[in-house]
Amino acid sequence: MSESEVRALFAVAARPEVVSLAGGMPYVEALPHQDVLDVFSRVLERDGARALQYSGGAGLPEAREAVCELMALEGMTADPAAVVVTVGGQQALDVLARVLLDPGDLVAVEGPTYVGALSAFSAYEPEYVTIPLDDDGMDPEALAGVLSGPRRPKFLYTVPNYSNPAGVMMSYERRQRVVEMCRAAGVLIVEDNPYGMLRFEGEAVPNLYSLDSENVVYIGTVSKVFAPGLRLGWVTAPAGLLRRVLVAKEGADLCTSSFSQLVTAEYLRSDRFRPNLEAFVALYRGRRDVMLEAVEEWLPEGSSWTHPHGGFYVWATLPEGMDTKVLLPEAVEHGVAYVPGTAFYPGDERGRNQMRLSFCYPTEDRIREGVRRLGGVLTARAAV
Amino acid sequence: MSESEVRALFAVAARPEVVSLAGGMPYVEALPHQDVLDVFSRVLERDGARALQYSGGAGLPEAREAVCELMALEGMTADPAAVVVTVGGQQALDVLARVLLDPGDLVAVEGPTYVGALSAFSAYEPEYVTIPLDDDGMDPEALAGVLSGPRRPKFLYTVPNYSNPAGVMMSYERRQRVVEMCRAAGVLIVEDNPYGMLRFEGEAVPNLYSLDSENVVYIGTVSKVFAPGLRLGWVTAPAGLLRRVLVAKEGADLCTSSFSQLVTAEYLRSDRFRPNLEAFVALYRGRRDVMLEAVEEWLPEGSSWTHPHGGFYVWATLPEGMDTKVLLPEAVEHGVAYVPGTAFYPGDERGRNQMRLSFCYPTEDRIREGVRRLGGVLTARAAV
Repeated sequence: MSESEVRALFAVAARPEVVSLAGGMPYVEALPHQDVLDVFSRVLERDGARALQYSGGAGLPEAREAVCELMALEGMTADPAAVVVTVGGQQALDVLARVLLDPGDLVAVEGPTYVGALSAFSAYEPEYVTIPLDDDGMDPEALAGVLSGPRRPKFLYTVPNYSNPAGVMMSYERRQRVVEMCRAAGVLIVEDNPYGMLRFEGEAVPNLYSLDSENVVYIGTVSKVFAPGLRLGWVTAPAGLLRRVLVAKEGADLCTSSFSQLVTAEYLRSDRFRPNLEAFVALYRGRRDVMLEAVEEWLPEGSSWTHPHGGFYVWATLPEGMDTKVLLPEAVEHGVAYVPGTAFYPGDERGRNQMRLSFCYPTEDRIREGVRRLGGVLTARAAV
Repeated sequence: MSESEVRALFAVAARPEVVSLAGGMPYVEALPHQDVLDVFSRVLERDGARALQYSGGAGLPEAREAVCELMALEGMTADPAAVVVTVGGQQALDVLARVLLDPGDLVAVEGPTYVGALSAFSAYEPEYVTIPLDDDGMDPEALAGVLSGPRRPKFLYTVPNYSNPAGVMMSYERRQRVVEMCRAAGVLIVEDNPYGMLRFEGEAVPNLYSLDSENVVYIGTVSKVFAPGLRLGWVTAPAGLLRRVLVAKEGADLCTSSFSQLVTAEYLRSDRFRPNLEAFVALYRGRRDVMLEAVEEWLPEGSSWTHPHGGFYVWATLPEGMDTKVLLPEAVEHGVAYVPGTAFYPGDERGRNQMRLSFCYPTEDRIREGVRRLGGVLTARAAV
């Protein structure tokens, strides 16, 4: 598709009658309005001048402390002095790539991987090697092959919890192996964890950072547990790397919004954070259930899909030969949008018969209707 | 100075008893609290879900429209479709450098120039050529020499209005010549205008963007007329370049805070913006007057300084042989901080006997006291 065709497609897909299973937008409408108002007002009342002023590149102390407290809820111990607050997790990806990558360097990513990470990294012109995912996360044998290969990756990028786009969880056993192998090979791990707190069922599994905080750079964000519109993320890294990240961050935008930092700290520390998070989890769990029922009912014979225990996404694989990129305009015409699988691999070769289906934003009824429409398009095409 | 010495110095300089003439912080305390509360509440009431959600990389329509309306107040005509909203003006510098520069490329900057621009550009490893400033802005003869030289700069970076750090205004006649010369040479101009609306006296002069919107990329920010803590800036560029800027922006952080965008649009369009801006201008004018009186009284014989008609800064040149970087620890010990002149030149050679003195944040009494202390240190040293 040409750029103008893509734009035209997006314009149609944004119409209210089209069910979008494409976006990764959290359902912020579920945040009680009064809770948000209270937090914003308290910050302005108590800290108005600071909220409106510049802050240091590393971030305000209360924001750095609050995100470390959030990490502690997932069993991680991080030092606020080792944190740089960023404009969402995305900026952490950008500044890390900036300090770590030279053109032609090799980066190891999961296949499929987060499309935004590919955008961030690609600005620095690396080459990619892909480690396949299955239902237990990345394949450790494939990783071993890469690590013992002729070119050592600069780092391994992973979303181990309810990955974007696959929705899978890396098993504990694999986490241990991945961490050990990377340490032995001297390859840094970049762990990106937007979804870890959106756990619908199953036990929590220790994050890679917990297993090796010396060789794992951790990226967090409040976009999925609070509000992406505030653009609040962070990165924690060993001291030497952290200093370079800080210089890159300051060059990139001086500092993250002080207001966003103070509001985030206030909210995370308020007694409303936990119940609202539980409400988010219940909401997304219900939508996940509906989506799984719907794909079971409507996707064509020979399709398979992941069964996420958390997060935002189901990753579907259609029968060989179907091309989700080619089918997208037809799907949109029939009132449903998704993201074609090729977006989540470097290059344009893999993922042709795959797609990401998001259950985070549309209501249950809309999810059912969207998947029904999608099934109609795909089944008609499968029958050809 | 080593990194740890610099850190120790900053720690001392941040003590309340030290008068900082170093920072470039606007005096946001002058914004009426109720005005801010009103704007923030209105946005949350009317547009809460949008304010908390992701937005597109280019920015929300109302933010792009509002900043174009702001440009119109300075006599510029810009199309909201040609705007990308950024995380302050700093991010505009970063993404422009990202799309325009390859390592080793030449960039032309004013001497002295904004230290943050040097940080942003330097991440992309350019080389610099410096065009000297005098009281009428950059020297067109020096620019002509560079443009006719063997290596053509990728772009010319300028802060034509009340420049940081020099506080000078490029004359209309020079603007016309600079714009004509750059167009003829095929060298893009990057015009950075944080201070244009902070005019204490004299007539407004057309911005470079008004003279040649096809060859001038314009960077704006609300940091100095509203609040830097919201991190709201923008860039407007010709279509081809704008598309590349947008891709770079999305890779860098997906989007600017939706909340910051909506609040900024609401404030700029409210009836409180203009009177509050006038109050800022009156406040800074008074502080400028006090600083000029104080430097006249206290700087050592043989010093000279600029007489800014707007903005935040006085640029002082001490007698030859004095070294402001060497003197800084002593000044801080005596209760006053400034930024040494070397920070504002590429490399570390020029500006040794120069310093930037900010009058934006300290009260008039503190400015008087700070310059008095500074004078004590410098005069004692000059007498040695």
